[in-house]
Amino acid sequence: MPEYSIGLDLGGTNLRAAAIERGGTMLDKISGETDFKGGRDAVLGDIAATIAKLRDKHGAGGLAGIGVGVPGFIRVKEGLITGSNNLAILENVPVRDELSRRLGTRVILENDANAAALGEKWIGAGRHVDDLVLLTLGTGIGGGIISGGRIVRGSVGMAGEFGHISVVVNGNPCGCGNQGCLEKHASASAVTAMAKLMRLGDGLSSKDVYDLAKTVGDAGDKARHIWKVVGESLGLMMAMLINTFNFPLYLLSGGMLPAWELFEPHMTRVAKERSFTFRATLTETRIAQATLGNEAGLFGAAYLPWIEA
Amino acid sequence: MPEYSIGLDLGGTNLRAAAIERGGTMLDKISGETDFKGGRDAVLGDIAATIAKLRDKHGAGGLAGIGVGVPGFIRVKEGLITGSNNLAILENVPVRDELSRRLGTRVILENDANAAALGEKWIGAGRHVDDLVLLTLGTGIGGGIISGGRIVRGSVGMAGEFGHISVVVNGNPCGCGNQGCLEKHASASAVTAMAKLMRLGDGLSSKDVYDLAKTVGDAGDKARHIWKVVGESLGLMMAMLINTFNFPLYLLSGGMLPAWELFEPHMTRVAKERSFTFRATLTETRIAQATLGNEAGLFGAAYLPWIEA
Repeated sequence: MPEYSIGLDLGGTNLRAAAIERGGTMLDKISGETDFKGGRDAVLGDIAATIAKLRDKHGAGGLAGIGVGVPGFIRVKEGLITGSNNLAILENVPVRDELSRRLGTRVILENDANAAALGEKWIGAGRHVDDLVLLTLGTGIGGGIISGGRIVRGSVGMAGEFGHISVVVNGNPCGCGNQGCLEKHASASAVTAMAKLMRLGDGLSSKDVYDLAKTVGDAGDKARHIWKVVGESLGLMMAMLINTFNFPLYLLSGGMLPAWELFEPHMTRVAKERSFTFRATLTETRIAQATLGNEAGLFGAAYLPWIEA
Repeated sequence: MPEYSIGLDLGGTNLRAAAIERGGTMLDKISGETDFKGGRDAVLGDIAATIAKLRDKHGAGGLAGIGVGVPGFIRVKEGLITGSNNLAILENVPVRDELSRRLGTRVILENDANAAALGEKWIGAGRHVDDLVLLTLGTGIGGGIISGGRIVRGSVGMAGEFGHISVVVNGNPCGCGNQGCLEKHASASAVTAMAKLMRLGDGLSSKDVYDLAKTVGDAGDKARHIWKVVGESLGLMMAMLINTFNFPLYLLSGGMLPAWELFEPHMTRVAKERSFTFRATLTETRIAQATLGNEAGLFGAAYLPWIEA
């Protein structure tokens, strides 16, 4: 029986779990919705039942442990979610110990974006390096940092909140209280808002703006301008990260990735202009696409039992 | 005989070395100028002789090793300085192995700003935490990152180049090729330049501008405005760092530190406005003054032999 581990991605509305063997092969994946209105005990029961389903199928004997990726502030030592927009019902509940008790195996909690960065390091685009930064570009922007093969977690797992760093000092206001956050200038939501400001249409998705940018004419020019703003905003962020870390690899993932060809040239140009470390021939720096998509968090969560003491 | 180690700070014009015992007490410190025009062999000879002087005085038996802090790009594995504005003469020379051979003991090279951050973590303002960021505010701005008690080095020791991150997108041009670098808006040189732009005087040092800011009247107002710009620029940087790391401690050191009272309120206000992590009560974040001054690098360099495998 191969040694395997179970990774869990605990979103605000759904729940995904995968059994992954030591070499990185995903043996099985299940997903389902969880009724977060059902009360704490029901939610914990749903989570434990999902994990038990995988464990019973693949055998309790080979199970190395369970990693759980959660959005929000976590206290790793105590095994608690201490703040979360989407999982308020599980705040300050002993989630780790409760799952561990119900399942009879070791459980590790981790911030979901950090887990995704670890997944890319383990088995994705970062498997050949020990140090990387991951940015996830979706409706929001998050990320994670891997240094020396391990997650840079921060006190409560909130390291890597790149989406709320200002790239435009007097930029768009953000719900976080800041202004000009990367998330307000380079996420899918930002693309939609810019399309509206450019009078390209009210209900355009970032995919629509991508398609428009492929067309000739005024609307196409405007759409390309939007991707230029996205790219330049990301370039500023990349320069900042490269100057901060001097790591060999910076990965982008998320729903915006298909537009890579439209924003990448602007991103790379600005990052080069603004980071002498990026331009230095004495150190190698790459910005690249992540390869695990939305399964990165599952892989990273599953990897945790093998690397955490 | 107590176990001790020797830390070296290799500047562009001078050379400082200290013998420091395992508990962190500095036993001895010597400094001198080195003639970097004397050729490679002469320079290596001067360095080895300085170290030998301390070793002979304190005994070869108790010497745990030697740590050397150097400004510039280093290849830690190879023990090379691979790029440096001030130490071009030692570039791509096997400095580590050559010193090790001459002295008969283990030598570790490290970037000087990284060593300073490690010093503060070991025995300075960061001794109670495992994770911190240090910014050094002098004529330039540098820094280092400690995560899990260890240096985040980057590929060639250039992690922590905070001085060249943009805080003003269309800001002052910088020799690094970027614009609006923190160093051009919040260093001692920036204070001098702003004083000139404010027509406060041509040859004013940052200390002069500090003194002026203590006076009543128009010149005092202008000087206080300069410290406001310094503080707000640092606040932007701090928000960025806090959002990136979620560490408990961010330290400032360097020649600008005496002006703390003038820039700190602006820095803290902007950092709070721009970082929800800083405002979050669920995680503790402190910005504080470093305590080791320009000896931090000596302490950090000396600490290296005890923590590097």
